[in-house]
Amino acid sequence: MDLDLARELAQESDTKIVLFVMDGLGGLPHPETGRTELETAYTPHLDMLARESACGFTLPVGPGITPGSGPGHLALFGYDPLRFNIGRGVLEAVGIDFDLQPADVAARGNFCTVDASGRITDRRAGRIRSEDSARLVAGLRDISVDGAQAFVEPVREHRFVLVLRPDGRASARGKGLSDAVADTDPQKEGVEALPPKATAAEGEATAALVAKWLEGARKYLSDKSPANMALLRGFAKRPDWPSMAEVFKLRPAAVAHYPMYRGLAKLVGMEALPAGPSLEDSVATLRENWGRFDYFFVHYKYTDTAGEDGDFDRKVAKFEEADTVIEPLLELEPDVLMIAGDHSTPALMAAHSWHPVPFMLRSRWMRADECGMFSETELRRGSLGTFPAKDVLPLAMAHAGRFKKYGA
Amino acid sequence: MDLDLARELAQESDTKIVLFVMDGLGGLPHPETGRTELETAYTPHLDMLARESACGFTLPVGPGITPGSGPGHLALFGYDPLRFNIGRGVLEAVGIDFDLQPADVAARGNFCTVDASGRITDRRAGRIRSEDSARLVAGLRDISVDGAQAFVEPVREHRFVLVLRPDGRASARGKGLSDAVADTDPQKEGVEALPPKATAAEGEATAALVAKWLEGARKYLSDKSPANMALLRGFAKRPDWPSMAEVFKLRPAAVAHYPMYRGLAKLVGMEALPAGPSLEDSVATLRENWGRFDYFFVHYKYTDTAGEDGDFDRKVAKFEEADTVIEPLLELEPDVLMIAGDHSTPALMAAHSWHPVPFMLRSRWMRADECGMFSETELRRGSLGTFPAKDVLPLAMAHAGRFKKYGA
Repeated sequence: MDLDLARELAQESDTKIVLFVMDGLGGLPHPETGRTELETAYTPHLDMLARESACGFTLPVGPGITPGSGPGHLALFGYDPLRFNIGRGVLEAVGIDFDLQPADVAARGNFCTVDASGRITDRRAGRIRSEDSARLVAGLRDISVDGAQAFVEPVREHRFVLVLRPDGRASARGKGLSDAVADTDPQKEGVEALPPKATAAEGEATAALVAKWLEGARKYLSDKSPANMALLRGFAKRPDWPSMAEVFKLRPAAVAHYPMYRGLAKLVGMEALPAGPSLEDSVATLRENWGRFDYFFVHYKYTDTAGEDGDFDRKVAKFEEADTVIEPLLELEPDVLMIAGDHSTPALMAAHSWHPVPFMLRSRWMRADECGMFSETELRRGSLGTFPAKDVLPLAMAHAGRFKKYGA
Repeated sequence: MDLDLARELAQESDTKIVLFVMDGLGGLPHPETGRTELETAYTPHLDMLARESACGFTLPVGPGITPGSGPGHLALFGYDPLRFNIGRGVLEAVGIDFDLQPADVAARGNFCTVDASGRITDRRAGRIRSEDSARLVAGLRDISVDGAQAFVEPVREHRFVLVLRPDGRASARGKGLSDAVADTDPQKEGVEALPPKATAAEGEATAALVAKWLEGARKYLSDKSPANMALLRGFAKRPDWPSMAEVFKLRPAAVAHYPMYRGLAKLVGMEALPAGPSLEDSVATLRENWGRFDYFFVHYKYTDTAGEDGDFDRKVAKFEEADTVIEPLLELEPDVLMIAGDHSTPALMAAHSWHPVPFMLRSRWMRADECGMFSETELRRGSLGTFPAKDVLPLAMAHAGRFKKYGA
């Protein structure tokens, strides 16, 4: 749904919406049993809910499109992921809870190896250990460039984030930073790193500044190991999007343990509540904050992690764990309870995939589809069919009595 | 479908299309039986038709969007309700069969009460009786303003329509009226009515004229009861849309008893045939005019009325009544017969809703879905799935042999 239309239709109400996201929810059948991870798991509460809910599948971005975590979640939050893009640098910064300011420019960094002539020999320096990375990052923090403050933060393995923030003097002269800077990562080996070229006139000052920073990085890293050079890509500024409060008249909160998901939620204006790693922690956070908000995004990461690791059995076990959250969620008596995923992560593929994602919605105002269980096979009978994930929030808004009639 | 594409594909034919609209068709299950209104009703002819038809659900405007009567019908007529908007004033005028001219500006009026200082105390004057309203309207007709003829027509309860038509002299000077005038209804009580401000330069002359009319209305109403003031909103001109004849090469007719639906049909160029209140009347009108037209929109209002009244049993009875029209419709041997609704009106909600609407299409050229009956549950098996209501007419055109091939 177009956000302008949503803004026109949204009205306040005292109803409550809960979106429980099992990351990487969808799967593929095990070759021996013919049953997916979800179908193999014993999930009596999810199955009971399926019999009482409107069911279907979400298409996170579009047919055949495998989404990253960003697009997968933005769609569930009501933001068309094809229109609302997050630059790679911002996603990385957000993923480590870096407090990105509107004037900042962030880039994703890779430690890599180059030979004596400067040609890249390994773009990821053999995926060096996070400890090695952290040590190199500490050194990079000493590089100073004129006109900006440079923050360097380790991410994991060979990855880091570079954030440039205009310094007081630059700001005083009205000179902001621009993200119109091309990647220095050539995305292949055997060639030299690219210079950070401006992709538009307004990027030239920033490109020069990045070039100076890279010169410092090259000097510092040249005699280091296991990496001796750094590549930058995905220069981006924090997007300035209309918030969920503004568009949907909701007071939205995120209950997520991982920084990436808290960060994504903050980009659309949710308040990120502190949440520990377990489902008990999530439920406790929900209970404590139940009165303060009317939309809750609850994130469960481990189904995706198991899927990414190609561990079918662990993904099954994680579904069985997730099943225990259903009763406590129902006890809160939300007006709308939705069970969804940001994308599929079939253990058989050990990766995100494009497959439509199981979805169900329970509210007083719906036709229950009486699907026998919460599974890829049974949900095919659901009345919601396969629909764009960006329609999840509009559906919830309707079922929560939060949308006015369109036209007379 | 885009109307330009429809225009390109449409071709003439001697086939006939009938669209039977049961207003507010979709429902929700009764908490005691788990069956919707449609599922509770004994409708042997509709059920027989379901076994011989292509079945599915229409989405009138979009997921989660509750449509008014205007958007719900426009979509069924092939006009994207998000692109083709009808102003409130026009909808009201059309709803009482007022013969709106292209140069007219119409506004919806409310009789209200104000206190001694002019602050609104009740925006609807306690929903005064239609008789009281009619008496006040008669007085308002005496107000004359320079440059336009002012028509005032009662609607129902506290509502009326004001239509301004440029007079001969104004027209001769080439001075038309504009609908760029803001509402005077502040949509809340305890404040004064707003002045009719121009929302663009071209609205200034009309705004001044409206202000003069309102001054007359204020004077006349000041010592009256049960209302002593009037509010205006939704200034609008009759939209100038491409007609169904022009776009779809159809000779379309509406068989509708209620003025609102006749009016909506006329906005897309249908001829509104006289039709009495009963289904027998509708069938008689159809028979008499069968040779003159090739597209018939037949409107049945009472399912919606019962739903809006929250009367589950009466809605059931109205479906059973509607079922009797199927045999006479089939006897006319239309090439395409469609059973549809403009939106859902679950008796449980006593209001329009966003739920997808049962739909079936019967023609010689289709795959029958063998749904067991015409019901929200059975239709889930239908091959049409849940699709935008604006695609109903393109589907009918195809099944009637009225669309050419696209591309070579």
